[in-house]
Amino acid sequence: MTRIDGRSPDQLRPITIERGWSKHAEGSVLVSFGDTKVLCTASVTEGVPRWRRGSGEGWVTAEYAMLPRSTNTRSDRESVRGKIGGRTHEISRLIGRSLRGVIDLRALSENTIALDCDVLQADGGTRTAAITGAYVALVDAVRWAQAKKITRAKAEPIVGAVAAVSVGIIDGVPMTDLCYEEDVRAETDMNIVCTGDGRFVEVQGTAEGAPFDRDLLNQLLDLGQLGCSELDAIQRKALEG
Amino acid sequence: MTRIDGRSPDQLRPITIERGWSKHAEGSVLVSFGDTKVLCTASVTEGVPRWRRGSGEGWVTAEYAMLPRSTNTRSDRESVRGKIGGRTHEISRLIGRSLRGVIDLRALSENTIALDCDVLQADGGTRTAAITGAYVALVDAVRWAQAKKITRAKAEPIVGAVAAVSVGIIDGVPMTDLCYEEDVRAETDMNIVCTGDGRFVEVQGTAEGAPFDRDLLNQLLDLGQLGCSELDAIQRKALEG
Amino acid sequence: MTRIDGRSPDQLRPITIERGWSKHAEGSVLVSFGDTKVLCTASVTEGVPRWRRGSGEGWVTAEYAMLPRSTNTRSDRESVRGKIGGRTHEISRLIGRSLRGVIDLRALSENTIALDCDVLQADGGTRTAAITGAYVALVDAVRWAQAKKITRAKAEPIVGAVAAVSVGIIDGVPMTDLCYEEDVRAETDMNIVCTGDGRFVEVQGTAEGAPFDRDLLNQLLDLGQLGCSELDAIQRKALEG
Amino acid sequence: MTRIDGRSPDQLRPITIERGWSKHAEGSVLVSFGDTKVLCTASVTEGVPRWRRGSGEGWVTAEYAMLPRSTNTRSDRESVRGKIGGRTHEISRLIGRSLRGVIDLRALSENTIALDCDVLQADGGTRTAAITGAYVALVDAVRWAQAKKITRAKAEPIVGAVAAVSVGIIDGVPMTDLCYEEDVRAETDMNIVCTGDGRFVEVQGTAEGAPFDRDLLNQLLDLGQLGCSELDAIQRKALEG
Amino acid sequence: MTRIDGRSPDQLRPITIERGWSKHAEGSVLVSFGDTKVLCTASVTEGVPRWRRGSGEGWVTAEYAMLPRSTNTRSDRESVRGKIGGRTHEISRLIGRSLRGVIDLRALSENTIALDCDVLQADGGTRTAAITGAYVALVDAVRWAQAKKITRAKAEPIVGAVAAVSVGIIDGVPMTDLCYEEDVRAETDMNIVCTGDGRFVEVQGTAEGAPFDRDLLNQLLDLGQLGCSELDAIQRKALEG
Amino acid sequence: MTRIDGRSPDQLRPITIERGWSKHAEGSVLVSFGDTKVLCTASVTEGVPRWRRGSGEGWVTAEYAMLPRSTNTRSDRESVRGKIGGRTHEISRLIGRSLRGVIDLRALSENTIALDCDVLQADGGTRTAAITGAYVALVDAVRWAQAKKITRAKAEPIVGAVAAVSVGIIDGVPMTDLCYEEDVRAETDMNIVCTGDGRFVEVQGTAEGAPFDRDLLNQLLDLGQLGCSELDAIQRKALEG
Repeated sequence: MTRIDGRSPDQLRPITIERGWSKHAEGSVLVSFGDTKVLCTASVTEGVPRWRRGSGEGWVTAEYAMLPRSTNTRSDRESVRGKIGGRTHEISRLIGRSLRGVIDLRALSENTIALDCDVLQADGGTRTAAITGAYVALVDAVRWAQAKKITRAKAEPIVGAVAAVSVGIIDGVPMTDLCYEEDVRAETDMNIVCTGDGRFVEVQGTAEGAPFDRDLLNQLLDLGQLGCSELDAIQRKALEG
Repeated sequence: MTRIDGRSPDQLRPITIERGWSKHAEGSVLVSFGDTKVLCTASVTEGVPRWRRGSGEGWVTAEYAMLPRSTNTRSDRESVRGKIGGRTHEISRLIGRSLRGVIDLRALSENTIALDCDVLQADGGTRTAAITGAYVALVDAVRWAQAKKITRAKAEPIVGAVAAVSVGIIDGVPMTDLCYEEDVRAETDMNIVCTGDGRFVEVQGTAEGAPFDRDLLNQLLDLGQLGCSELDAIQRKALEG
Repeated sequence: MTRIDGRSPDQLRPITIERGWSKHAEGSVLVSFGDTKVLCTASVTEGVPRWRRGSGEGWVTAEYAMLPRSTNTRSDRESVRGKIGGRTHEISRLIGRSLRGVIDLRALSENTIALDCDVLQADGGTRTAAITGAYVALVDAVRWAQAKKITRAKAEPIVGAVAAVSVGIIDGVPMTDLCYEEDVRAETDMNIVCTGDGRFVEVQGTAEGAPFDRDLLNQLLDLGQLGCSELDAIQRKALEG
Repeated sequence: MTRIDGRSPDQLRPITIERGWSKHAEGSVLVSFGDTKVLCTASVTEGVPRWRRGSGEGWVTAEYAMLPRSTNTRSDRESVRGKIGGRTHEISRLIGRSLRGVIDLRALSENTIALDCDVLQADGGTRTAAITGAYVALVDAVRWAQAKKITRAKAEPIVGAVAAVSVGIIDGVPMTDLCYEEDVRAETDMNIVCTGDGRFVEVQGTAEGAPFDRDLLNQLLDLGQLGCSELDAIQRKALEG
Repeated sequence: MTRIDGRSPDQLRPITIERGWSKHAEGSVLVSFGDTKVLCTASVTEGVPRWRRGSGEGWVTAEYAMLPRSTNTRSDRESVRGKIGGRTHEISRLIGRSLRGVIDLRALSENTIALDCDVLQADGGTRTAAITGAYVALVDAVRWAQAKKITRAKAEPIVGAVAAVSVGIIDGVPMTDLCYEEDVRAETDMNIVCTGDGRFVEVQGTAEGAPFDRDLLNQLLDLGQLGCSELDAIQRKALEG
Repeated sequence: MTRIDGRSPDQLRPITIERGWSKHAEGSVLVSFGDTKVLCTASVTEGVPRWRRGSGEGWVTAEYAMLPRSTNTRSDRESVRGKIGGRTHEISRLIGRSLRGVIDLRALSENTIALDCDVLQADGGTRTAAITGAYVALVDAVRWAQAKKITRAKAEPIVGAVAAVSVGIIDGVPMTDLCYEEDVRAETDMNIVCTGDGRFVEVQGTAEGAPFDRDLLNQLLDLGQLGCSELDAIQRKALEG
């Protein structure tokens, strides 16, 4: 069984994480999963949304978007259509939840970090690349906030690492980190978000074609945990650099 | 370990499925999961959206919404705010995917079935009640279309049954069909959508608090499969009635 | 002259008013005028909109909406279209004005009551059913607020009862409480909102076909006053129950 | 009983109707009811909205709007707010219905006439001035269309005249054509739309304060019919000019 | 070389400026450049937008709009479409910048003046007529504010006069104050905004057809300065009247 | 007189033009003017907007947008706000007009080229960088269309080159290609769009502070023509590469 690009079923695409991409943002990363490229910026602002004021806790939020021609065919801008589509909403919410899963909001104090994940080029797995890159940008932004002494003293806001990978079943074979062409052909498509120590933050699996049984689900979970642990190593290395 | 309402951890709330609730819709169901009540209507229209014309296939779509005071505190109407929120989008998409998972769109011929799932009263599990009830409304609508001979002759559009249940971990104990009060307290919240024969159409799990490990995940999947199989029996009985 | 459903020209359809329909709302009513069913909830919140703050007076507001398949043909959701149509606006405003007509806002103190009238099934006369049902929900909500001692002491916010009925001219004959099929055929269509003692809160008559003369107008007003007084009796009975 | 501006209770304000105000529109009128000034243009386009194509009938529609500073205090533009308010919707619909009440759409053939009523200065009674002026613009537009031979041959689209006036009760006294200051003080406010021969096209009465009884209603209807008949004479004269 | 309406290339159309057009606004002008008629109102409100509070400075803002049938063919209302088009935005911003160019915002104190420029009839040059008329309305509004003693004592908010004219090249000949028919044929179209002493506030030139060289640009600038100085004289006269 | 970054008044920032940045778009360029980075993609689609069908001519359109954290402070997304701001509209229109100025739409045949200019990092001059980069992407897209033989045979759609630069007056000194810090301080700000042979496509100058006289305007035009001619050389080199 060979994949379109010659990878083995459990092999990730080449992953790169380039920190400090933007001169303005407190954290910024250009992350690539093969040809998928996502620019993730983390913006720190003092204060929190109205509904959290006085709670003593911070907030982390995320917005995902695709440039109109990041895909093979140009899409209309959501700003021009005047509304955000369901898919965009869904992914933005997923990224936000995933990152909040490894943040101690109390240690962050009443500060907000907004993660913007803009897909510059899409080739499958944009949401998982976004989560993986946004985590690194988030760490840089938290370090910036700590240096500025606006977080809670002697408390660590980052309580874990988080990475994500898509897995799927193609012609009955479970595979990891699907590119666009594979994604289109997948019978089942699953996004796995794991912490650095291999626990789950989010599991989302969808039968695009036939429903899948428990055994295939287990194989996909195995692949997802494996992929996330490799991404965790790459994130650590990027953060050391 | 007793639950708020005295149920055992693997016990569903009282489930009722009332068919033929509306005089206008081709299929209509008032479904209750305890105090959660969702009105599901299935509307058949001949023809399909522009992007599917000429494909020879039909389409099934879904929209979910909550009445403003279906919840404990009144929410603003999305029509008044002028846009649909992310949660609504996410759930509408989930319901649509789940039902398309058991429909042969080719057998449906170029007809569209729109499922409207309006929450009249909410007490947790509104999306799983909606999927469970919408399936029954969908079957009635397909039967109506078959009687009107607008589907493909000698082909069966309904290729399986589908039901859904929410499961979660509260104080470390996996539990099924969470009511609102339990849902708020759950560390992990998972929605499981299964076919009548126990395979998965959709699996969505989120760590609200601490990430969850593979063992807990497995227990939740067990509970979800069990709950769906019980719902499948209730659906069958309702459809016989 | 027999009507479609066998009624005499001055006969209302079977009217039912079911109080306490929802477990969440401070007042809630499922009202039926024949096959027209409207769920009316009254939500009390302390405080008033910004423009009334400090006035010492409360506020009563209303929103009307139809479920997409409450009608014979499915309509698009106004939330999906991103704007509220003129008819919806018009009816919401009518309901709000009608109920404010029997409330002493000063006695209500700075509290707001929002009436949500959602049409579950439509068969003509949805706005008049909504007003008639919303009044009962409003009374329950005011009683709740009084029990909670948030209204003005020794003052009665409810200064009258209000009910509404549609009347119209079909083939030259004035008739009361039109069902959908009659409404479509009516040359003139009028909505009459009266207090319990037979005075007018709102009168809205429209010539759909030929203009109508003063004599026909007088007959319609007679019918409307009669219908409202019957509805008033039904409301009283429901409130006693 | 003297009125603010010295009129008797049944006396209209000075009314002027200036035809041919715009060089572009097929019909255009600047109508004044005292200090209320409304520019009414009638635009003819061949063809009808999609839902009427092939019916052989035309369509008449209306849009009402106020310039931001037509009133004493500046209002935000509805274009800037991104949505049309309920009052605007309600009045636009009223104007459209009133004018369709005197048009034979079949004689108009498949042509559309759009009436735009823009309030340049407001001092009460803007909707009644709009209807009264729009009728004259409509006649001019129909004559233009007849000259261009795009209406049905040997058929007359204009089957009657229409005018409108507001009436109300102030300190218990019924009065006609209320200016803004009177409108604010009125206990009951009514808009009467009549044909040239004194029949009703639309009757809309609202108790702003206490409900009103049948006797007062009758007095208001008398005043409204009287006012409309005077406006009819002014319209005739303008059309002869 | 004769122009469509017999003017010489450097001749403005007949210009009229009618002050005090509206009874409500603090400043109001009906300005005509030939058949182009724009109603400009200036509304004073105490206070400034949130982002300027506490600055001690005032604010001047402008909104431009066209009535639907101000043009030869009816356009849809921007309020109905639910969004403001690019051209409207662009012109509103130009008018605002031009007027702020001659106002000392500090002398205005924390007050806001909103200029509304509504095109009643369009025949080319609507934005330049709007600027020219709005300046006069602005002066009246400032005088009103000074009389009410809400501006800074002993300081003059109006630090210059401003007027605007369109110039363009038609068949190679530079011409001033283009009417619509000329505007459509122009190869290059330029809007010049000058102060009373002949300096530039804004210069906007666009090659509609072939790019233009420096020599033609210079001729257009000459024409623009000349036109503005004539408009300045007309404004002065109107303000004296 | 030294500038912030040590440049002489007539010196451009380092300019880079990287072609073929995206694997999907028919033309794509990452252009840098110092720290300002804009991703320009050109998307070819066969066919034209409805209003041009059957004209035999093509169309070129442009959309400009900034990533939320391309600037020093994060801005809300226009898609989230649900509408496009005036500045965005204005710049998108400027880019579109500038590029249409050097295209023979007839030679393009009935094809549409959409230019998307997304600012990844902003440091002043984003619109001029966008025009300069978009021109190169446009040329690549036209060459692609020619290779695919969908343009008019034996006709050249590209009839000239186009580049743009901002110029301004700081402390009385005219300077070219302003960075953000300079832009904020500029008394006058001007954007010049020139063809490769030094003629003007668009000239837009605004007095941010005091109005400017003809002499300063001439100096700015000189600087702009000079800057554009240097950019033209860089574009040529990039296109040869």
